[in-house]
Order: sequence, then structure tokens, then C-alpha cells
Amino acid sequence: MRPSGRAPDEMRAITIDTGFTMHAEGSCLVSFGDTKVICTASVEERVPPFLRGKGQGWVTAEYSMLPRATHTRGQREAAKGKQSGRTQEIQRLIGRSLRSVVNLNKLGERQIVLDCDVIQADGGTRTASISGAWVALRLAVDTLMKKGALTEDPIDAKIAAISCGIHQGTPVLDLDYVEDSSADADANFVLIEGGRIAEVQATAEGATYDEEGLLRLLRLAQIGCARIFKAQEEATRR
Amino acid sequence: MRPSGRAPDEMRAITIDTGFTMHAEGSCLVSFGDTKVICTASVEERVPPFLRGKGQGWVTAEYSMLPRATHTRGQREAAKGKQSGRTQEIQRLIGRSLRSVVNLNKLGERQIVLDCDVIQADGGTRTASISGAWVALRLAVDTLMKKGALTEDPIDAKIAAISCGIHQGTPVLDLDYVEDSSADADANFVLIEGGRIAEVQATAEGATYDEEGLLRLLRLAQIGCARIFKAQEEATRR
Amino acid sequence: MRPSGRAPDEMRAITIDTGFTMHAEGSCLVSFGDTKVICTASVEERVPPFLRGKGQGWVTAEYSMLPRATHTRGQREAAKGKQSGRTQEIQRLIGRSLRSVVNLNKLGERQIVLDCDVIQADGGTRTASISGAWVALRLAVDTLMKKGALTEDPIDAKIAAISCGIHQGTPVLDLDYVEDSSADADANFVLIEGGRIAEVQATAEGATYDEEGLLRLLRLAQIGCARIFKAQEEATRR
Amino acid sequence: MRPSGRAPDEMRAITIDTGFTMHAEGSCLVSFGDTKVICTASVEERVPPFLRGKGQGWVTAEYSMLPRATHTRGQREAAKGKQSGRTQEIQRLIGRSLRSVVNLNKLGERQIVLDCDVIQADGGTRTASISGAWVALRLAVDTLMKKGALTEDPIDAKIAAISCGIHQGTPVLDLDYVEDSSADADANFVLIEGGRIAEVQATAEGATYDEEGLLRLLRLAQIGCARIFKAQEEATRR
Amino acid sequence: MRPSGRAPDEMRAITIDTGFTMHAEGSCLVSFGDTKVICTASVEERVPPFLRGKGQGWVTAEYSMLPRATHTRGQREAAKGKQSGRTQEIQRLIGRSLRSVVNLNKLGERQIVLDCDVIQADGGTRTASISGAWVALRLAVDTLMKKGALTEDPIDAKIAAISCGIHQGTPVLDLDYVEDSSADADANFVLIEGGRIAEVQATAEGATYDEEGLLRLLRLAQIGCARIFKAQEEATRR
Amino acid sequence: MRPSGRAPDEMRAITIDTGFTMHAEGSCLVSFGDTKVICTASVEERVPPFLRGKGQGWVTAEYSMLPRATHTRGQREAAKGKQSGRTQEIQRLIGRSLRSVVNLNKLGERQIVLDCDVIQADGGTRTASISGAWVALRLAVDTLMKKGALTEDPIDAKIAAISCGIHQGTPVLDLDYVEDSSADADANFVLIEGGRIAEVQATAEGATYDEEGLLRLLRLAQIGCARIFKAQEEATRR
Repeated sequence: MRPSGRAPDEMRAITIDTGFTMHAEGSCLVSFGDTKVICTASVEERVPPFLRGKGQGWVTAEYSMLPRATHTRGQREAAKGKQSGRTQEIQRLIGRSLRSVVNLNKLGERQIVLDCDVIQADGGTRTASISGAWVALRLAVDTLMKKGALTEDPIDAKIAAISCGIHQGTPVLDLDYVEDSSADADANFVLIEGGRIAEVQATAEGATYDEEGLLRLLRLAQIGCARIFKAQEEATRR
Repeated sequence: MRPSGRAPDEMRAITIDTGFTMHAEGSCLVSFGDTKVICTASVEERVPPFLRGKGQGWVTAEYSMLPRATHTRGQREAAKGKQSGRTQEIQRLIGRSLRSVVNLNKLGERQIVLDCDVIQADGGTRTASISGAWVALRLAVDTLMKKGALTEDPIDAKIAAISCGIHQGTPVLDLDYVEDSSADADANFVLIEGGRIAEVQATAEGATYDEEGLLRLLRLAQIGCARIFKAQEEATRR
Repeated sequence: MRPSGRAPDEMRAITIDTGFTMHAEGSCLVSFGDTKVICTASVEERVPPFLRGKGQGWVTAEYSMLPRATHTRGQREAAKGKQSGRTQEIQRLIGRSLRSVVNLNKLGERQIVLDCDVIQADGGTRTASISGAWVALRLAVDTLMKKGALTEDPIDAKIAAISCGIHQGTPVLDLDYVEDSSADADANFVLIEGGRIAEVQATAEGATYDEEGLLRLLRLAQIGCARIFKAQEEATRR
Repeated sequence: MRPSGRAPDEMRAITIDTGFTMHAEGSCLVSFGDTKVICTASVEERVPPFLRGKGQGWVTAEYSMLPRATHTRGQREAAKGKQSGRTQEIQRLIGRSLRSVVNLNKLGERQIVLDCDVIQADGGTRTASISGAWVALRLAVDTLMKKGALTEDPIDAKIAAISCGIHQGTPVLDLDYVEDSSADADANFVLIEGGRIAEVQATAEGATYDEEGLLRLLRLAQIGCARIFKAQEEATRR
Repeated sequence: MRPSGRAPDEMRAITIDTGFTMHAEGSCLVSFGDTKVICTASVEERVPPFLRGKGQGWVTAEYSMLPRATHTRGQREAAKGKQSGRTQEIQRLIGRSLRSVVNLNKLGERQIVLDCDVIQADGGTRTASISGAWVALRLAVDTLMKKGALTEDPIDAKIAAISCGIHQGTPVLDLDYVEDSSADADANFVLIEGGRIAEVQATAEGATYDEEGLLRLLRLAQIGCARIFKAQEEATRR
Repeated sequence: MRPSGRAPDEMRAITIDTGFTMHAEGSCLVSFGDTKVICTASVEERVPPFLRGKGQGWVTAEYSMLPRATHTRGQREAAKGKQSGRTQEIQRLIGRSLRSVVNLNKLGERQIVLDCDVIQADGGTRTASISGAWVALRLAVDTLMKKGALTEDPIDAKIAAISCGIHQGTPVLDLDYVEDSSADADANFVLIEGGRIAEVQATAEGATYDEEGLLRLLRLAQIGCARIFKAQEEATRR
């Protein structure tokens, strides 16, 4: 029995409120249960130095948590003067994942920055971020296409992410904070609509796992991402 | 005529949604028109080093803007590795203002940290922050009193803040971004319910002002803060 | 009775020694009683990036205290690796104040940097800095005009600043450290010769204040600044 | 055909020179072909603050590359003033991996720091680091046991890591730099002797992959780690 | 002929104004010609962590230049966020030199911090700093002895420093900026009254030098330091 | 008697292994007894901003120690976020020394960066670094000449460095860590083949020294550098 009473393959409620902020070219508030993340996509008509003059675009991401998104207040990274290793790891993962479904040549020489700011955390903030960032990106690209700045759609497919883990011996889907902090293994899957994989990160925490365990987690992730793809479709009509 | 069509002494709609995040001891989302700030109050059972063992508490504040709270995306301060002078100035003002209505001896040897995170900006973010931070603080103190951790109420009075300015020669109340960026003078008033003043910051921007102008801005601020005190009362039943 | 024995509207002795350092285009040592600040104006034939090619100039300021300017030694900001919020707040105020009396178009595409380094502190360091910075600026502009680099005088008027406060219930002028550290309210006024106001910052410390108090402090500031304008005139023959 | 002429499941030559530096409690120079990493294990009789007084130990890691370990010189992180996101990600992975085979309670209240410094890079530096760090750790623990500081062996098993990837459509083992920079997918596996998995990180680069691809990479990793376990055994007689 | 018209073994005018600032336990303004440095000695009743509980004291130094001490304005180190290598090298030299004439055991468990702030630079700032820092230290120790906090004098001897160099083939004493920037070799000598040497730093700039050159520079330094010892004696009556 | 049993003018074994790393244009592993430093020379076809367009080149150096190069592990500078004063002092010395034997005009508009990374320390790391850096530089320049990128040799002479000190009253050559940490005086000499001096840094540690002592240390340094010049010649056939 899971602490939340959910079945092993049962996700939390997912909601995606689009247009959550007025200035960004694309934005949403994504919720996986009590985990809530503001995702915005900002279009900038310039690219990082290493891409200048190459005729292609770039997609990158930044991630942060409000100090009191968590049970106890964490120190603000801007006040500490640096981003933690965890923050950098997560924002690199978000950027890499989104780039795997974008044709950077079709994007033209511009950059889209995805900001994922967690306002409330209850496990799975990085996977909610990736799933919501896709919606923000989709909306920003739609804006560019409506304005005629883009004629071909640079987005190849939907992408979503979900955490799975082995909790008290049972593989379970979409861990909340209580499960996450006592799981034996913790895995994040980034999947592309249609069955391809963009990233697997599966880490032993209390106990190691085996090939069979890895595959069972992957099966759960496929169930979860199917749900997220549907929510993304409803949010964007795509 | 103001760009927004408002009368010179007319404020934007104010809303205060309490309990906006689940982990903080007190929280709200405060909106002054399109300016939206998440305010949380976090109770910590310790005080800064300079107060240890003195039997009194502390109230402090931190302020930040999400990168895309504004028209164009700003660089994340955590990524830059330091807080701007503007950020530090604002968070010092918020902390100082709130401390002016708290009896730190009655608070006991604990600290309340007020985090004000702007998720959407349209002028007046610092004054909305102060006004919302009071609500978060009030709710956190209520929590402490309900739990019996405090027997006497350490909060002396309500405090609110509003910006006023001279725009095209006319003193106006509650500037939005369009007015703020073209105002001749820009003033922030922090007022205490009952008529006392906690802080005045009045700055010439395009043109200097005189004593008469200062007094007219103060009158507008009194009108505005009366409105905010009422909204605070409705939000907290105090 | 004030700790110093001064009357409520009595200032400390003001001296302004011009040409205090040999390399700067303009410089002075300004003393308000035991508060002593070296002010230098450095002319640079370039402007910050945001002004390049716009045909206008810039005036900015930096402020610092020598570690042992104060009763107990403070840590050197260069050793800590960052400027405090207080330092940034003060240097922003100095720059903003001086810019309010300079016609940046007449200055041409050059920058004048005002460095205010406190070598001895006894209250009122920021107001002494503003008052002395004007002298350094005036001298640097005179140098540019004598050289023919400027044909029109870009300085519109004199500007001066003074602190006032409510000490044991009495509004007093030009607080020294002893008064400043026990004042109920502390205000800094930046006034322009001729009666206009550039900035008011009035902060409740131990106790809040009211409109009447604010006006009485403004009256004192007008008395004080008249004295400073005279000292500036004697120092610069303007 | 691989650029190096190796068969798809063929590793590069592995050498592990133990006792490479004289001061560390355990050390080795590990080479995977032209990739060379100095691994040292330093025993410190203290633990990080969050573990003090809990009677258990800690294992952590740091990773760095000499500036000219690579084809073109990279900027020194100490000169830049911060560790890159990549560096932090790698050192977190090394520490987490090694901790998964150490019983921290048996280690006692002491810390072992594993430093992995890449002196020459040709792909696979993080996996060589993990594999070499185990040897350094094993030797340091042996030293503690010989001295009688430890009576029970806190190391549960060998751990090793290897990179695999899909290169021009073919899954291959132990990528060198040329393959790594043009691979479609790049995966790092951290395996424990006996068949359990500590970590899988599989990332789509040029192209996404599927479940079948993931499993084939895992098979290759099992072949590779078997080779590394043997080299570790020869190096440590364990 | 030297640019200044001085003879090869002729120093610039030296003045030492003691009691230059009111808060420091010891202070002076030292001038070597147009080079002017404020030196303060601050007594702190604590020692750095590595000396706690060892019953001995510590002497350390910090050095800085005001931004416009030089011909063109230099960036403020506090604004850059770090001290340059040059600054650190100089302050390490000052601290090391002064410690060589202090018996740290006799000083007791307290620290004296010497701050050397250059307000005007014309060559030889580090040697003026050392020479002036001794005076500030002497005065601070005198204060401690008068108060009875010290019964035995911890200062063993006077220490002074002077720069010498080879300029257009001629060894010269006490280089000013013009000579310093075109010298073939530049040497700083820190000498102790009575003939002993604390430090020699002799660097080839445009051209290398030989043993004979080194000895001739040392002779000049002995002449120069004799002059400084006399000025120190007059300033402190010691 | 020296702790190592060596005669006062006896050096430790010197070895210089060239071509130690495969990517650098020039490299070696230099050993002075148990002190081991990897020196690499990286050629970059650009110069620092202050030299752009002047038609001359630049030689600079960076220095670091692996955390466990020493008896107890030191904190990694990249993790601390800044280079220590000692590191900066040493790398400035290395760069300055090497530049004194290079004709920067003949080098053309390119930069050679010398990286000296200490992998094992037993005293004399900075002098081993200078001596080894010359070999790396020589090899890199040979590469440039072989490729025809340089037609004239920009290196004027060999340069080497050695530490000497006064240990228990006796001047000794090439101090190891045990001697270095208890020496009365510690001197580093940078000498040029043919008898000229590039740099002398002689510091009193436990006791001051006199002119006679300085000369005796210089004599020892001449003996030591003769040995190093020979080793450099064997390593580079120059």
C-alpha cells in the first residue's frame, strides 16, 4: 500500500493552466498533485556566442525553487551567490530534453529560454518541469508561427517526463515527497510520444536494483507519460 | 488623463488570496492589478548570530522576481551569482517596514522570514510585497498563537505601502508600469494603520519636485493605504 | 539637550578642501564635523554599454568606507568579495542625486565617476558624500570647460544633502553617530539650490513619525543645505 | 567499423597503477586507453555537519580536469571562480556511486574524500574515475584496517562504470572521444559486481533510442564492467 | 640624470603624520613624496581560528588603493568582487614583514590588523605601507601598554622598506612612478634596524641583472632605510 | 646534518619526462625528488585584450596543486571559488620569469599558456614549476618552428629556479618539505643560463638574515641551477 493510497501505476492529478503569466510568449502552471511549477518560454532574437552566424537556434532552460516551496525553508540561491549542483543538473536535463524534440535549424537564429520555477514541491519537480516546459515552448512557437516569424514548425513531437521508483519492494509510478524520500531506487524517464526514449536516469538510493526492476520502471513510465501527453494535448490543442 | 483611464486617486483592483502555498506558516498571493507577488512567512526557531541569547526575535525579508515577470526576460540573479543593488534595497525596505510594527521581544527567540517573489510585474512590486508580507506574517503569527507558542500578539498594527508619483504634472496614485517609466517623480510610502508613517522614499526622476508636491503625494498614499488596510482585514479577519 | 551640546538646528563645522588628490580631474576632502570623506571625480571618455552611440553622457558614483573608519573595524568589502546592500543603496543614491542636476546631453558621450571614500565616520557619511561629490564634479567640469572639451556648462544647479532625525522627541539637524544610533526616526534630504527636492528618505527607527514630524525635518534640512550651498560656493567660487 | 578499429564489444586497454602518489591513504592512476585519471582517497577523521554525532561515516568525491587534458585548453575552474554544471554533475555521480557499496555505519565517524583529477582525456573520464576511485577507496580502507582503525570491512562489493553508446546505428562499448562526439546516444552504467545496478544515465544526443537499444547498451556494459572488476581485483588483490 | 632631478641615492621627502584617524588604536598618514598611504592598526581581542587557545597573538595586514589614487581610475576591487593577485601579494608581504619584528607570544591572544589604504600613488606604495604600518603598530602597542593590557613590549625592532631599481643603467633609490615604469630591474627591500634583512624581492623587468647589481641595490636600500628609521623615531619618540 | 642526509650543496634527483601528455604542444613531468609537477605549454592563436593589434605575443602561467598533493588534503580552489593569494603569487612569478627569456615580438600575435599542476609536493613546487615550464615552452616553440609558424627562435636563453634556505644555521640547497617548514630563511632564485638573475625572493621565516647569508644562498642557487640547465638540455637536446 502506498502512503497516498494510490495504486502502484496510479498517477496524481495533472493540471496544466496555460497563459499563466502575461509577458511570456508561452507559459503555464503545471501541477502534478501538490507539485506546482510555473513554466515560461521567452523568445530572444539572439543566440549564444558559440552559435552566432550558424543560422540555427537554441533552446535552453533554467530551474529554481522558491525558498519556501519545501517543508522547511531553503536558502535562496541568489543570496548564496551560486546555483547548487542539483539545480544545475536539473536545468541541464530540462534543456537537453526539450532540444531532443526541436529542429534547431528550423527555429532560425533565435533562442527560447524555458524558466521552470517551482512554487510548491511534493516530489517530481524536475519531471513536472519538463512536461510543463514543453507546453510553454509549444505555445511560444505557436505565437511565432502566427506572427509569421516561423513558417515551418520546429517541434518534432511531444516530450514528457515522469519519476518512478521502487518503494518497499514495489515499483510505483509518480512518487510524491513521502515515497521519494524513502524509495530504494529513484528513476526519471523522459519519453517522446510514439515510444522513443530521450533520457533515463535510474539511481539506487537505499538499495541497488536489477535489469528486471529497470524494465518494470520503464513500463510504468510509459503509462505515466501517456497520461501527460493527453494533458499536454488538451492544454495546447495539439 | 492616465494611460489606464483611472482617476488620479484611483487604485487598481487589489486581491489577496491567503493560503496560497501549503508548506509556509503563512502565505498569500497579492495582486495590485497585473502585479502579482507570492508572499510567504517562514517561522524558524533560531535567530541571527547578533541576537543569540538576547531573548528577542527577528523579522527579515527576501525579494526576487521570476526572470520573465517583466516585459523582457531578466537574467536570473542565482545564475549571475549575486543580487542586484535594487533587489537588496527592496528587501531591506520590506524587512525594516515589517519590523516597525512587530514587538520583537514578544516574538521570543525565533525568526520569521518573509519571502516576496514577484511572478508578474506591472509597477509597484515593492509596495505590493510589503502589503502582502504583512498578511503572510499575520497568518504565521496566528498559527504560532493557536499552537500556544505565543501568548501575546507581537504585531502592533497593520502596515501597508503604495507608490505615488507625479505623471505629466499630475500627482497620481498606484502607478502601473507605463506611468512609472515616464513619471517625473516616484514615491513609495509605508504607512501604519492609524496615521503614522514608517517610511517615505520620494525620488525625482525626470524633474525635481517641491514641498507642496510631496504633501499631495502623501495625501494620495493615505487614500491608497486605507484601501489596502481594508483588503488586509478581509483577508485575515483582523 | 543634544549629546554634542548643539542647538536642534545647529550643524557641525563643514570644511571642504579642494584639490585633495593630484590625479583626479576634480577632488575634495569634505568634513561634516568628524565625518571625513575623500570625493574624486574621474572623467572617462566612454559611456556604459546602454548609452553607447546616443550622444549623451553619464554620471555614476561608488562609495566605500575604509575598514577602520568606524569605532570597531569592519571587514573590507573587497576581501568579502561583495559590496553590502547598504553600500549599494548609498552609491545608487549618490549617483541618482548628482544626475538630477546634470544635463547629460550637454555632457557629451563621456562618463564622470564620483568616488566617495569615507576615511573617518561619525554619522552622515552619505550626505557628506553627496555634498562633496558635487564639488568634485563641479571642479572636473570646470577642467573640461577650461580645456575646451565642453562649451556649455552641463551642471544646472548646486545639490546638497543633510540628515535630520527625531532624537528623544526633538527634531534635530545633522546627526552625529551618537544621535544617529539612538534616533527614533532618521531622514536624509537631498535638496537643490533654489528650493526643489531631489530625494527624501525618511525612516522610522525606534518609533514611527507623522506628517507634522516629516515637515519639521524638511524645514531643518532646508536650513542645513543653505549652509552647505554656501560652503560649496566658497570652495568652488561658483 | 569503429574509428579505432575495435569490435563493438571491445574495450580499450585498462591499466591501474596503485600507489601513484605518496601522501594519500589510497591512490591509483587509472587508464582507459588514452584517458588517464589520478584517483586519491583521503581519510579525514571528521564528517560533514549534517552527520555529526550520528556515529556514521561519509564518502564524497571531487572531479576536475587539468586545463590541457583536452584537445584545446579549457579555462581553469579555480580561475573562473566556479565549478561548471558538468563538473558538479560528475562529482555527485562519483560520490553517490561509491556510497552505494559502502556501509557508512561500519565506516565510523570519518569521511573519505575521493579526488579524481583527469590528466589526459579521450572520452569516458567519469566512468574511469568511478572505476579508479573504487581502487583508491579499497586501498585506503585496507590501510585503516591494517592500522586497526576499522575491524569490519565497510565495503560491500566492487563497483565499476563504463560508457556505451549508439554510434552510426551500432551499439558500442567504451567510447573514445571521436565516437563520443558523434554518437546518437550516450549512456553511462554503474554496475556492482554480482549483477546489480547502481545507476543508469542514458541520453539521446543526435537521435533518440528505444527500449531495445537501452537493453543492448546494458548488455555491453555488463561485458565491460566484468573486465574492469578483473582489473580492480588484480590491482588490489581483492 | 633622474627624471626628478634627484641624485641616485637621494630619497623623496618623507613625512609621517600620526593620529591621522580618530578611531584606530594607532594610525598615521605616511608620504614618500607624492605617494600617500593611510595606515591604521586595529586591536582585536581574538585571534584567527588556527591560533585559538595557543596563547599567542597575530599580526596581519590588508592593502588597497582608492580607485583614483592613480593616473587613470582603476576598478574598485569590492565592485569586481575580488582582490587582485597584486593586492594579495602586497598585503601578504606587509603582514609577513611586520610579524618578523613582533614577538607573538608577548602580544597575548589578540590580533592587530594593519590596514594600508593608498590615497595617492606615485611609486613605492608597498614600501611606504610597510614603513607606515610599523608606526601605526608601534602606536597601537603603546596604547595597549599604557592601558596595562601588555606589560612587556612585543616589538623587537624597527622595520622599514624601500624600493630601488636600475634605471637607464644606474642603480637608484626610491623610484617614483615615472622611473618605476621604465626601470630595467625593480627591487623591494625590507630591512630591520641594526642591519638584518627581512625580505628581498628583486625582479628583472626590461633587462636582467647580476650579483653586482643586486649588491649595489642593497647598499642603496640601507641608505634609504636609515632615513626612514629616523622618521619613524621622530614620529613615535622611539 | 640535513634531515635527508644530503650535503648542504647537494640537490635531490632531477628528472624531466617530456611528452607527458598527448594534447599539449609541449609538456613534461618534472621531478625534484618527491616533488612532481606536470607542466604543459598550450599555444593559442590570440593574445590578451591589452596586446591586441600590437604584433607581439604573450606568455603567461597558471599554477595549482591537486588537493591531495600534500600531507593532508587541501580544499580544492575551484570548490572554494577562488585562487589563494599564494597561488596567484606563484603563477605571477612563473609567468614573469618565463617572459624574461622570451622575445615577445618574435613570438608573433599568439599566446603560450604554461600550466603547472603539482601532483605531489615535497617542497620547492614553484621552482620545479619554473624549471619544468621552460622545457614545456621550449618544446612548444620547437613545434611552432617545425610547422613553420615561427622562423626565428623567440627564446633567448634557458631559465631555471631553485630554493635555498638557512636551516639550523647552515645555508642549504633545494629544501624538501621537512627543511622548508623549519627553515630560518627561505629564498627562491630564478637564474638565467650565463649568470644573469631574473628574480630573487628571500624571506626571513624564523629568523632574519644578513648580507653575507644572502650571498651564500645565491652561490648555492648558482650550483643548483647549473644542474637544472643540464637536465633541461638533456630533455630538449638544446
